[in-house]
Amino acid sequence: MTKSRLEAFTDGVIAILITIMVLELHRPEGPHLSDLQPLVPTLLAYLLSFVFLAIYWNNHHHLMQVVERIDGAVLWANMHLLFWLSLIPWITAWMGQHPRQRVPVVVYGIVLFACGVAYLVLTRALLRIHVPGSRLAVALGADWKGKLSAVAYLVALPLAALTTWAAISVYVAVAIVWIVPDRRISRVLAEVPAATAD
Amino acid sequence: MTKSRLEAFTDGVIAILITIMVLELHRPEGPHLSDLQPLVPTLLAYLLSFVFLAIYWNNHHHLMQVVERIDGAVLWANMHLLFWLSLIPWITAWMGQHPRQRVPVVVYGIVLFACGVAYLVLTRALLRIHVPGSRLAVALGADWKGKLSAVAYLVALPLAALTTWAAISVYVAVAIVWIVPDRRISRVLAEVPAATAD
Amino acid sequence: MTKSRLEAFTDGVIAILITIMVLELHRPEGPHLSDLQPLVPTLLAYLLSFVFLAIYWNNHHHLMQVVERIDGAVLWANMHLLFWLSLIPWITAWMGQHPRQRVPVVVYGIVLFACGVAYLVLTRALLRIHVPGSRLAVALGADWKGKLSAVAYLVALPLAALTTWAAISVYVAVAIVWIVPDRRISRVLAEVPAATAD
Amino acid sequence: MTKSRLEAFTDGVIAILITIMVLELHRPEGPHLSDLQPLVPTLLAYLLSFVFLAIYWNNHHHLMQVVERIDGAVLWANMHLLFWLSLIPWITAWMGQHPRQRVPVVVYGIVLFACGVAYLVLTRALLRIHVPGSRLAVALGADWKGKLSAVAYLVALPLAALTTWAAISVYVAVAIVWIVPDRRISRVLAEVPAATAD
Repeated sequence: MTKSRLEAFTDGVIAILITIMVLELHRPEGPHLSDLQPLVPTLLAYLLSFVFLAIYWNNHHHLMQVVERIDGAVLWANMHLLFWLSLIPWITAWMGQHPRQRVPVVVYGIVLFACGVAYLVLTRALLRIHVPGSRLAVALGADWKGKLSAVAYLVALPLAALTTWAAISVYVAVAIVWIVPDRRISRVLAEVPAATAD
Repeated sequence: MTKSRLEAFTDGVIAILITIMVLELHRPEGPHLSDLQPLVPTLLAYLLSFVFLAIYWNNHHHLMQVVERIDGAVLWANMHLLFWLSLIPWITAWMGQHPRQRVPVVVYGIVLFACGVAYLVLTRALLRIHVPGSRLAVALGADWKGKLSAVAYLVALPLAALTTWAAISVYVAVAIVWIVPDRRISRVLAEVPAATAD
Repeated sequence: MTKSRLEAFTDGVIAILITIMVLELHRPEGPHLSDLQPLVPTLLAYLLSFVFLAIYWNNHHHLMQVVERIDGAVLWANMHLLFWLSLIPWITAWMGQHPRQRVPVVVYGIVLFACGVAYLVLTRALLRIHVPGSRLAVALGADWKGKLSAVAYLVALPLAALTTWAAISVYVAVAIVWIVPDRRISRVLAEVPAATAD
Repeated sequence: MTKSRLEAFTDGVIAILITIMVLELHRPEGPHLSDLQPLVPTLLAYLLSFVFLAIYWNNHHHLMQVVERIDGAVLWANMHLLFWLSLIPWITAWMGQHPRQRVPVVVYGIVLFACGVAYLVLTRALLRIHVPGSRLAVALGADWKGKLSAVAYLVALPLAALTTWAAISVYVAVAIVWIVPDRRISRVLAEVPAATAD
């Protein structure tokens, strides 16, 4: 089974998700600068979600470079990831409208947490069909970054009960940690020889 | 005629369909947990339709791997399938809003039935230009699963007259049967040699 | 300059256009069969426009198979075609809502006419950089079908002043003529040897 | 790291942006010619933004042909460009509704300026990993056209304080300058030998 159509489909879905979020940015009501002001939280929520989707695309792009084979379980693990990512535009619009309300901020964190778990599930489904010592196995290693991000989201949820800005700060911090490119896979591509091609 | 642009176009359309459904998930009206509650049926309908579209993409992906050539009739059979699939977001939104009303649930079943028939028509159009004994012919075989799904939808339609939940249960059951990956094509890819490449 | 990204971009835009039209299919107002009835003209307009966009994709797909090179002028001619195609969802929604009103039906015809002219312009831009006797030049020939379609749209416009159904019938007739696959390019692919690859 | 998925993702995002703008073209309120009239400024704004997005796609297409390698910084520079481009449909809808109001016209210019700067940043990120004398370095040269466009937008912003049409004229002029295809890269492709492929 070739990975190219999986990549193309994932590219398509993430490209659409990152773009339709902007449809939630409603046109300002009037033509004045003050009409832009009520949109500022939505714009900031859009920026944060854009960065999260960009991170997932970047990581998926890096990951697939060391993948040698896929199977039906990987296809479904990937679909599962796309399902949770597809909820991001919807929850972004809700949080953007109510940035100081506990529930939308918590539900935003739950969706991010589910995306993180779905990504971990995808890497497990891939590891199951790659031998230890393969580029993929070496590149992923213990995957501390992925696991710690999931923990960070779990910590953020009760924080939102105190103040939504504390939870949002955790989300922003996780995003910043991931923007720094993941050097593991670049290093592995340079050092570990490829196994038999797919 | 190469199949790669057909695959790319189909990937594009299904990626968009699976994604724009989420645009029908309207933003909750207020910021409270209780504002999420009226959206639950829509969310569940979205999940079911997401799974159906994912099944079609998975099957299309598997199918095209054993296809050796396409022609103008296949292009139109594929477009015909995409037309019925394109109605899924619309009918999902309607059923999600009225999950206990007979007509939306029946029309949802009719659209699923038409998608199933369109997929059968596509496989027939492909078989017409592949020799018996080709990977495609062996992989499809008698295609009991495809035919039984079509029958299941037909059975579900009168059930909806009794209770919509019975019909919805049939839809869910068909989805579960298809999530189990179709091993026919994987087996054929391993066992039957490829004919002359396209 | 390679044609693969031009194909991918065109596939993307047409896939999106063919799909977002369905967003104009508003959810029926109530859950009854009678609530579907006011949507019938919109559904039929959607079907017609789906077929037109499918025809353009099919023809573009066939055309690009005999194209050996592209240049900056071809990129812009292709963008010009995509611009007119992009107006189809908008005009479809308008005509679907007012199928018996002269102006929407005429504007629909004008957009189809402009798409046809844009396609002719694209083929001219391609012919300018292909030698006579190339697959492209042989396949296009005098292009009577393209030119007659443009004439048919021009005839349909005044017809709409008498009755909108006469104009719509001409649109449907042109669509049917084009659904019959264009055998010219398949024939040329089989008979005329390829020139130097791009 | 291969550039093909970066191209595919960028194609996807720009294809979607160029297409969803048309969703902002609301259906005319009634069926008469006079109902089209209030949409004329929106249609013209749509045309202008379509041309700008087409220019970015064309330039990106040309640019990537002389790119030999990419890295994580390039992925993020590209995402940064896509972020600013993604605001174009939203700001187009606002300016189209208020073409004689200073603020929307100025904000439109700011978004175009940010897109131009993001494109410059992307070229810098690429130059950092290409040697002097590479096709990319020769093709970009001093990049006067890119820098002058950025200056033109900066000049247009105060002009909008006098009259919005002066600012819009500058935007149109910049677009016209860019529609003329950029011969630098075509020339370089013909004259400068490729370095080691990626």
